[in-house]
Amino acid sequence: MKSAIEAVYHISCPAEAAEERARAVAVEQSVEMPVAAIEDERVLGEIVGEVRGVRELRPGLHEARIGLNVETTGHDAGQLINMLFGNASLLEDVILADADFPAETLRAFGGPRQGFAELRARGGVQGRALTASALKPQGMPAAKLADLARRFAEGGVDYIKDDHGLADQAYSPFAERVAAVAAAMRQTGGRTRYVPSLTGDLDALKGQIRVARDNGVDTVMLAPMVSGLSNLQALVRQNADMAFLAHPSLGGAARIAPPLLIGKLFRLFGAGAVVFPNYGGRFGYSRDTCRALAHAALDPWGGLAPSVPVPAGGMTLARVPELLDFYGAEVMLLIGGNLLAARERLVEETAAFVASVERYFYG
Amino acid sequence: MKSAIEAVYHISCPAEAAEERARAVAVEQSVEMPVAAIEDERVLGEIVGEVRGVRELRPGLHEARIGLNVETTGHDAGQLINMLFGNASLLEDVILADADFPAETLRAFGGPRQGFAELRARGGVQGRALTASALKPQGMPAAKLADLARRFAEGGVDYIKDDHGLADQAYSPFAERVAAVAAAMRQTGGRTRYVPSLTGDLDALKGQIRVARDNGVDTVMLAPMVSGLSNLQALVRQNADMAFLAHPSLGGAARIAPPLLIGKLFRLFGAGAVVFPNYGGRFGYSRDTCRALAHAALDPWGGLAPSVPVPAGGMTLARVPELLDFYGAEVMLLIGGNLLAARERLVEETAAFVASVERYFYG
Repeated sequence: MKSAIEAVYHISCPAEAAEERARAVAVEQSVEMPVAAIEDERVLGEIVGEVRGVRELRPGLHEARIGLNVETTGHDAGQLINMLFGNASLLEDVILADADFPAETLRAFGGPRQGFAELRARGGVQGRALTASALKPQGMPAAKLADLARRFAEGGVDYIKDDHGLADQAYSPFAERVAAVAAAMRQTGGRTRYVPSLTGDLDALKGQIRVARDNGVDTVMLAPMVSGLSNLQALVRQNADMAFLAHPSLGGAARIAPPLLIGKLFRLFGAGAVVFPNYGGRFGYSRDTCRALAHAALDPWGGLAPSVPVPAGGMTLARVPELLDFYGAEVMLLIGGNLLAARERLVEETAAFVASVERYFYG
Repeated sequence: MKSAIEAVYHISCPAEAAEERARAVAVEQSVEMPVAAIEDERVLGEIVGEVRGVRELRPGLHEARIGLNVETTGHDAGQLINMLFGNASLLEDVILADADFPAETLRAFGGPRQGFAELRARGGVQGRALTASALKPQGMPAAKLADLARRFAEGGVDYIKDDHGLADQAYSPFAERVAAVAAAMRQTGGRTRYVPSLTGDLDALKGQIRVARDNGVDTVMLAPMVSGLSNLQALVRQNADMAFLAHPSLGGAARIAPPLLIGKLFRLFGAGAVVFPNYGGRFGYSRDTCRALAHAALDPWGGLAPSVPVPAGGMTLARVPELLDFYGAEVMLLIGGNLLAARERLVEETAAFVASVERYFYG
């Protein structure tokens, strides 16, 4: 195989079955037919998935490293995930743990056009973590959401994202919401960025980006596993000036390891910021998972711009020092519900959040 | 809540925690913030998810029925799955087991425009199961795939689908493949339908449908969980003459119950045929799961056309009578690798498959 992706699967099976299960996954994720029935020499030599190593991680769990021909992906994000885990996702005993990509894959997708550095520059931020909050709950009319955004901005937060439940609904149409919130941002006059959530098919997504840009918005959010990875790829390519936050909705708990899906793949396909459920919140990701995810998003990787990790999901003001101890300055802290719970003291609580991040000693 | 989707979750937790976990899921899938911090009366009364019942299924596993306001979906397929399972997919202890939809949801999405009846009519088939095979392996040039299709057609199979690994790759560009295979179909002169696999973003998908239609193709396949559910919805709406097969790639093993995802939701969004991994093949779906999935695809449902269930994944000629005993005439049997394994006897084996389906006594 000339140029290969090396996919790493974790397979639950007895030791004596591991080699055979690894070969089965290699076939499932490539030719998907009995190898004995293949006549074409090129297919046998270049296309059939190649088991490169199998080792026991612990009794009953095995790691299989499998080479997959990069040509099979056609440099399309959807087809890439299809080749990595399409049918294997239907196998209960298989997890997609990691993947290494050849340089041509990195070149073809290109990563974030607007990454961590640009997201910091937009906020005029240097040497500290970024701050963010969320507009909730869905069901409120645009004017009320705009008022909420104004108060977050008065508190001085860097980014305000839509709750990912906010879409294009009758009670809060996208265009009306974006116009109202963007106007509120202009009135406060600060550098706070509003990040609307995009939903729907690619035509709807494109239309929403046009509306966002017309309102001076330069950062948007979408959930790639809902919207389709290929749509993300297209939007990133067509809107090089726009920064994209990726939301983990429908990402699953762990069938695809979160550091790979959210840290690596979303970054590869162009997300400049990746939201994920932090340890110790409402979700079950471990500290190790979160650390690995942050590294995958940030570490040098063949010239791709870094994405900023955005731990979220039940974070609180009280945890800011601990979170900064853990992540350092290379993070965007997102606190939503905990600030909203302050109700009439929301501006003050937001300011306290921002101050806590600004005053932290990053060492 | 005036008009609600009722979502059914299975939650793994101790009995004493079940009510609280159910409320947490109801909040997660609606307002995603502390309910105590919500001031808006309409949001509290109409938008916050409503726990309608919790019962123990077995020790440690509980069913929670939760009402979700249908307005939150904006009648977009992606937003619908986002509201049903977006964040909950990140919770390891929660499975989306089922959902009931109000009439307005069924009307808004509309189901298959070309369903089981139309797929039968295309093949001139009455009163028997449909037959199908698959073009594999990927990596072969278009001319070889076309030759393979010609031989399947000579064997008399009703439908020939692309392997879902076939995309728009350098070694087999979509347009070249479709032209070659469609020409082979015309030469054989039978009623066999070629079903190319669509991949990429919505613009790519639309372009591929144009190519397909220009070549006389009236049935296409895509993997909705890869392509994005909203893209499927758009394509179905814009191509009412085209039949859509849904492939389960990236569908996951069981975090969303397959009868709901593949049987109900893919049908709701317009797939006229739904491919799924059959029991007793390479995948782990049980007989009960397959039976429930087939019922979900076929049963009367608020005026939506039925989708034909397409059990697949390692089926063999020898199993045809057993599969027809199980599914009856309301099925499309898909045998791929087992026919390909016949190599030079592929036409004869295909003819034997077709004869076995035609001669079966459907009672």
